[in-house]
Amino acid sequence: MLDNSFYTAEVQGPYETASIGRLELEEGGVIEDCWLAYATAGTLNEDKSNAILIPTWYSGTHQTWFQQYIGTDHALDPSKYFIISINQIGNGLSVSPANTTDDSISMSKFPNVRIGDDVVAQDRLLRQEFGITELFAVVGGSMGAQQTYEWIVRFPDQVHRAAPIAGTAKNTPHDFIFTLTLNEAIEADPGFNGGEYSSHEEVADGLRRQSHLWAAMGFSTEFWKQEAWRRLGLESKESVLADFLDPLFMSMDPNTLLNNAWKWQRGDVSRHTGGDLAAALGRVKAKTFVMPISEDMFFPVRDCAAEQALIPGSELRVIDDIAGHLGLFNLSENYMPQIDKNLKELFES
Amino acid sequence: MLDNSFYTAEVQGPYETASIGRLELEEGGVIEDCWLAYATAGTLNEDKSNAILIPTWYSGTHQTWFQQYIGTDHALDPSKYFIISINQIGNGLSVSPANTTDDSISMSKFPNVRIGDDVVAQDRLLRQEFGITELFAVVGGSMGAQQTYEWIVRFPDQVHRAAPIAGTAKNTPHDFIFTLTLNEAIEADPGFNGGEYSSHEEVADGLRRQSHLWAAMGFSTEFWKQEAWRRLGLESKESVLADFLDPLFMSMDPNTLLNNAWKWQRGDVSRHTGGDLAAALGRVKAKTFVMPISEDMFFPVRDCAAEQALIPGSELRVIDDIAGHLGLFNLSENYMPQIDKNLKELFES
Repeated sequence: MLDNSFYTAEVQGPYETASIGRLELEEGGVIEDCWLAYATAGTLNEDKSNAILIPTWYSGTHQTWFQQYIGTDHALDPSKYFIISINQIGNGLSVSPANTTDDSISMSKFPNVRIGDDVVAQDRLLRQEFGITELFAVVGGSMGAQQTYEWIVRFPDQVHRAAPIAGTAKNTPHDFIFTLTLNEAIEADPGFNGGEYSSHEEVADGLRRQSHLWAAMGFSTEFWKQEAWRRLGLESKESVLADFLDPLFMSMDPNTLLNNAWKWQRGDVSRHTGGDLAAALGRVKAKTFVMPISEDMFFPVRDCAAEQALIPGSELRVIDDIAGHLGLFNLSENYMPQIDKNLKELFES
Repeated sequence: MLDNSFYTAEVQGPYETASIGRLELEEGGVIEDCWLAYATAGTLNEDKSNAILIPTWYSGTHQTWFQQYIGTDHALDPSKYFIISINQIGNGLSVSPANTTDDSISMSKFPNVRIGDDVVAQDRLLRQEFGITELFAVVGGSMGAQQTYEWIVRFPDQVHRAAPIAGTAKNTPHDFIFTLTLNEAIEADPGFNGGEYSSHEEVADGLRRQSHLWAAMGFSTEFWKQEAWRRLGLESKESVLADFLDPLFMSMDPNTLLNNAWKWQRGDVSRHTGGDLAAALGRVKAKTFVMPISEDMFFPVRDCAAEQALIPGSELRVIDDIAGHLGLFNLSENYMPQIDKNLKELFES
């Protein structure tokens, strides 16, 4: 186990953990003690019909959801719903390369995890800890959208509503390559040492390089041109890197990012139907609002729209935001009102 | 001087060299013996009114222009025009970090060069070698477009027509950051050794990483999704990297790429007018067709259109191509017909 204060309740906000026991993974690996970190808001009603699940995105935790999306003034209203955000496997809070006490899966030995493994684990946790067998909704951004799609294809009878935001059901080749560059930024650092570093700080240069890739692809060209970062209280584009993105990514655990990236690259609900994406998405019974962000450079609207067209009864709800993909962090004034409006409509449907 | 067969006439096609002598650079450096590599096609007419200049792009040379754009079946027709492509300073064929015999500017000591230095040098070469004082047209892609803009703003009375393709008059902040990531891919390689490697092969890992960044940003998301690379005779996306982009970039000289990138990052015609871009572009007298590529991810159409609107009498001619920025290599069937059509119209105006 490595010491990294980034992955603590002090930094990420309060959370619980629970073990679902042994998890056999799609790729053949095993996590003997698969424990998940989760945070909840609101109260589960008697017939357990008001649970909303929020899976997490690459590099993220439940935190942004609790800070930005959840509140009585939002669609994700804890006075109405029981909201549970479950951190994805390998994200630094749930069982992960640098926080496991199981030496057989620590650091570079951590097994490859699939989006499907997360969804299976989340289903088991919801049943075991809460007796939840059906979800009022699943809402997720980016890799959380990948998990949302997996939920509604894998367990079509268990989810009533779904909002995949800024993500895809089947990862695109462009995203695969972008993620490759994210990985290479880390792996090129001699301090990475094949995943056997003794502190994430030894990989500071690699993490900083990854931060800069997010600067180039995570925001839109127009975000930079209009200097929309001024709204964040920053004074120059250099400061967006040095004072915002760099400290964030340089706090993270390299193996966590690589494990997440491997999973991201291979997200694909069509593996349930022999590669037939239309057949996979045709299974969906949840009322689904597909919500791409207008200026997203690597989950572009057209990719999301093509998938939406394959989901029965679904609707395309484009979120207009020049922040691009990282708009997920609620950076633009007009972002959250659009999210809330669409989610409210979805939840009332 | 380093040995690198990539920068030879055998690989790049025939060229001449000429020295314009001492070149004092905008940034304060000096190249005592500034020699430029250039290639020509066609014949200069008696009144020297048919000369078309083609400056070169990042990582490129005159070669692609001669292989793809110039011919009696193209707008750039050597039976009508005297076409001269001058390689930009530091590109590996003109005086560059790894090919200079002047130890005071070799390798990491090569001075920072500006787009304006190239244009001044090109003007001197054209006068000295050919007596050319006016240009029928300047046509350039990407960094070649930056040089084209510099020509028509700096020497408004010397250029009659201009076609900046897939490039900008003032570099954008997003492009600055993308270029930063290109640089960091190289600089992170221990073999780079602060620019004092003894062979570009020592920087193979860094050059390969840069190749992958081009894969992610140089093409469009749709190029990858539609597998448009199949037209190049490649069989998988992995092969696009391993058999096309990687060998190309791994042949290049790291200091050449870094020197070009520094120049690219700071391209800005508005430094002639105290930062006033409208005033700078308002100087232009050349008939100008601004030609962005529809799917370009880092010189997006809207950035080019905003500049075009500031150029008197100019027209916006968008080139529709899912290949994105690297469409400049003439990868799509519909690319060259659009280029030829627009250039013909420009040349006949």
